[in-house]
Amino acid sequence: MSKTISIGIVGYGNLGRGVESAIRQNPDMKLEAIFTRRNPDSLNAGTPMVSIDNIEQYKGKIDVLILCGGSAKDLPEQGPSLAKHFHTVDSFDTHALIPEYFNKVDDAASTNGNVSVISTGWDPGLFSLNRLIAEAVLPDGKEYTFWGKGVSQGHSDAIRRVEGVSNGIQYTIPREEAVNRVRSGSNPVLTTKEKHLRECFVVLEDGADAEAVANEIKNMPNYFADYETVVHFVSEDVLKAEHSKMPHGGNVLRSGQTGENNGNTQLVEFSLKLDSNPEFTASVLVAYARAAYRMAQAGQSGAKTVFDVPYGLLSPKSPEQLRKELL
Amino acid sequence: MSKTISIGIVGYGNLGRGVESAIRQNPDMKLEAIFTRRNPDSLNAGTPMVSIDNIEQYKGKIDVLILCGGSAKDLPEQGPSLAKHFHTVDSFDTHALIPEYFNKVDDAASTNGNVSVISTGWDPGLFSLNRLIAEAVLPDGKEYTFWGKGVSQGHSDAIRRVEGVSNGIQYTIPREEAVNRVRSGSNPVLTTKEKHLRECFVVLEDGADAEAVANEIKNMPNYFADYETVVHFVSEDVLKAEHSKMPHGGNVLRSGQTGENNGNTQLVEFSLKLDSNPEFTASVLVAYARAAYRMAQAGQSGAKTVFDVPYGLLSPKSPEQLRKELL
Repeated sequence: MSKTISIGIVGYGNLGRGVESAIRQNPDMKLEAIFTRRNPDSLNAGTPMVSIDNIEQYKGKIDVLILCGGSAKDLPEQGPSLAKHFHTVDSFDTHALIPEYFNKVDDAASTNGNVSVISTGWDPGLFSLNRLIAEAVLPDGKEYTFWGKGVSQGHSDAIRRVEGVSNGIQYTIPREEAVNRVRSGSNPVLTTKEKHLRECFVVLEDGADAEAVANEIKNMPNYFADYETVVHFVSEDVLKAEHSKMPHGGNVLRSGQTGENNGNTQLVEFSLKLDSNPEFTASVLVAYARAAYRMAQAGQSGAKTVFDVPYGLLSPKSPEQLRKELL
Repeated sequence: MSKTISIGIVGYGNLGRGVESAIRQNPDMKLEAIFTRRNPDSLNAGTPMVSIDNIEQYKGKIDVLILCGGSAKDLPEQGPSLAKHFHTVDSFDTHALIPEYFNKVDDAASTNGNVSVISTGWDPGLFSLNRLIAEAVLPDGKEYTFWGKGVSQGHSDAIRRVEGVSNGIQYTIPREEAVNRVRSGSNPVLTTKEKHLRECFVVLEDGADAEAVANEIKNMPNYFADYETVVHFVSEDVLKAEHSKMPHGGNVLRSGQTGENNGNTQLVEFSLKLDSNPEFTASVLVAYARAAYRMAQAGQSGAKTVFDVPYGLLSPKSPEQLRKELL
């Protein structure tokens, strides 16, 4: 067994806490420090909490930094700047900006001999891997991604802006009939709205008109009007008790044809059903931190994505063990 | 776009024909020759058919050989001997013998600077990859593999040996209730027989006693006695018309816990529903032939498994395109 991998967490929100838990499940890793922009004294996690301003003092003490900040503001700045000093792993998930982000991180990492695995997690991440392999194996085919059941932050915010609403949450749910049409191999043409329905749990303000609120939500342009939308009214207590987890998931399917005259239909499906979206993303980040460390040990450098990382590097098991036990 | 990859097929049964079809779906490849032990003149596929005795004359003309022989007799001999002269890909699937086979092929390939991807397809292959990544991401969890709906050759042979049976076929089918117990996240303990049921389609000989045949099949030790077994009687015509395809598939599931006190359940599932088992396996082999070629171009050598091959090498798309389109 090789040496224990020292991990640093940057950012201590839901994702950072998930990484902290995940590291406890991996005996070949240890958590060295948590870096935060908040006042470090105000946090207590049984691990040194350090101001991010002092992070460079940890050069040499940390093998891989797991960046747990957000894609909108934190990572575009932290990704390239920390890749100059550390091997890093992140879950940058603004799909349209990935090429630009890759190039910036690649510059910083390559110049300094570091490895940075960007944009891992489940989408981008495990879903991307499944899109790639299914397309490579079945070039004559069609790919479908369904998301949910999971909370959409944007739609939840939209509900909460409706007059008469004191609180609320929105779940995006794949339409079972659409998933089944894809599974049948008929390669249907489906828009996002045909693939998903929207379920809302809403807490009314005192004296608010439930019917008027439901109508306003269901007819809200862009967000709900084109979807099948279900609105439930619940108390604040029920909302807190039953809707404060962060479930998510989804399905990536590809249905393709093979053989003489493309006569046979082949269906590949990958799906996730997650009680906790941030904890699962965190668990993926931790596995890729192991891979980043090993790629660095092997002399590689630069930005990498999940497409560049052989699965064997994700597991604590040796190549011999993997061939014997898992192949 | 890089140069066209020249492929040779060794063995022209169902799998070899599947590879021939799959290559037509991949414009970056061309089929150079098919090598066979049968009399080459007796075959006609629009491609040079060459006696396997003359295969070494094709050194330099073929980039990757796809070995389509069986795991029992062909591959243990052909794998190591052809890896001396060519980059190869195969679907060696005798799980218990993979470590030994790997070592022999690795010796031959390494010594001669060739790349040999062994044991790819879907199990071993895509299922193995999913077992590995799900275990790496969710170390506290339990893995389940279900096979089917698909034909079991061994069980079909057993049926045909029963007195009064003129022909027959057996499908192994995952029990939906067992799959659903796993999907519920309850981590049940399930034996193979609790996970699968057996469905038989049987053609009787003239004058045979249907009830006696059904009883003998259902009570056959090892094969059927411990399973729920369904027996249907059909005519030879129906058997030919409705049961001559080679469907298969299955599911790899892992259910694991994450977070504070392992309080959240996370489910990862990969599944295949295949009209044609050999054609799908062939399509996987072709994608890995592309990867083998690229690994060789990059100066690598030796035996590789799916665990050693980054997904990016499987696709004809460039890394930039993959990051932009599929991540």
